[in-house]
Amino acid sequence: MSFEQSQARRGGFVLWFTGLSGAGKSTLSRAVAPHLAAERHVEILDGDEVRTHLSRGLGFSREDRDVNVHRIGFVARLLARAGAAAVTAAISPYRETRDEVRRHCEAEGIPFVEVHVQARLETLVSRDVKGLYARALAGEIPHFTGVSDPYEPPAAPEVTVSSDGEEVARSAEKVLAHLRARGLLEPEVRA
Amino acid sequence: MSFEQSQARRGGFVLWFTGLSGAGKSTLSRAVAPHLAAERHVEILDGDEVRTHLSRGLGFSREDRDVNVHRIGFVARLLARAGAAAVTAAISPYRETRDEVRRHCEAEGIPFVEVHVQARLETLVSRDVKGLYARALAGEIPHFTGVSDPYEPPAAPEVTVSSDGEEVARSAEKVLAHLRARGLLEPEVRA
Repeated sequence: MSFEQSQARRGGFVLWFTGLSGAGKSTLSRAVAPHLAAERHVEILDGDEVRTHLSRGLGFSREDRDVNVHRIGFVARLLARAGAAAVTAAISPYRETRDEVRRHCEAEGIPFVEVHVQARLETLVSRDVKGLYARALAGEIPHFTGVSDPYEPPAAPEVTVSSDGEEVARSAEKVLAHLRARGLLEPEVRA
Repeated sequence: MSFEQSQARRGGFVLWFTGLSGAGKSTLSRAVAPHLAAERHVEILDGDEVRTHLSRGLGFSREDRDVNVHRIGFVARLLARAGAAAVTAAISPYRETRDEVRRHCEAEGIPFVEVHVQARLETLVSRDVKGLYARALAGEIPHFTGVSDPYEPPAAPEVTVSSDGEEVARSAEKVLAHLRARGLLEPEVRA
């Protein structure tokens, strides 16, 4: 429950990155965050941190993933209500679940900006920073998104970036440009 | 992870009510909240809301209660970082667990104000708004705090109120007076 008596809404919003493991959600969220922090408090809820603090004990079944995503959505909404930019960087593989979170936000007047961080599976497999794709392809990790578990890309994300060939700075600029166009970030001042 | 680049901390804090079921934590938090809302965003995390959105599936063992309290503490800390007054109203029966949450807050410079909402068990049993004490005393509810599960009162709470004979308005004023004395709330202006 929140109380807003003598103050106008302070302009928080939810910036929701979705994409496969290793696609660059966390990297991109860290590239974008400092640009937002000049104007408001920014909090990044990344998949690992959330699994530790909010969702320990949950697994990777559809049901457990949905509970996890709804929890992230709940906390992001609370932060946005408080005027913060809540940046989430969890895989969040199911379209319907992301859309439910969006509806909950928009029902409260909280802007929800979905950013699809695309990457071809071949790229991720060849990059494989954590060695997870090799293990998943060998059948050692059940429910691995993109290999042995579904990933449903957004039907109409506000922004799509690709980490296949696009520089992080370029992807970040696309996100920032969208936020400026929406009035969620001050226009860039050029000296 | 949070980013604070060009802005000072905005003065969020955690106001943590603890006490037995029916002692008046939610009632008191709702009495206090409007007085805080003039100066900052206020969010009440009450026990029932949190059980729905953050902790569904957890039970009432010591371990599950501790996980629940740590989750509330995590979210309250995020909100306070964003400059909000995070008001919690969960039983939170274990002293050590509350103290851990306090340490996490204070380590970040976030003021943690613990309010013990006292009430004699006889009062709660005779009041028994939800009929839970009668059922717990009949042995129908295992792990019921104060009857079949422990409640450890705070050793040194910032504020102690009693809902036995004290009016809610008087209890609320004690909490507000403490916040003013700590500089967490503007001094009262008398016309």
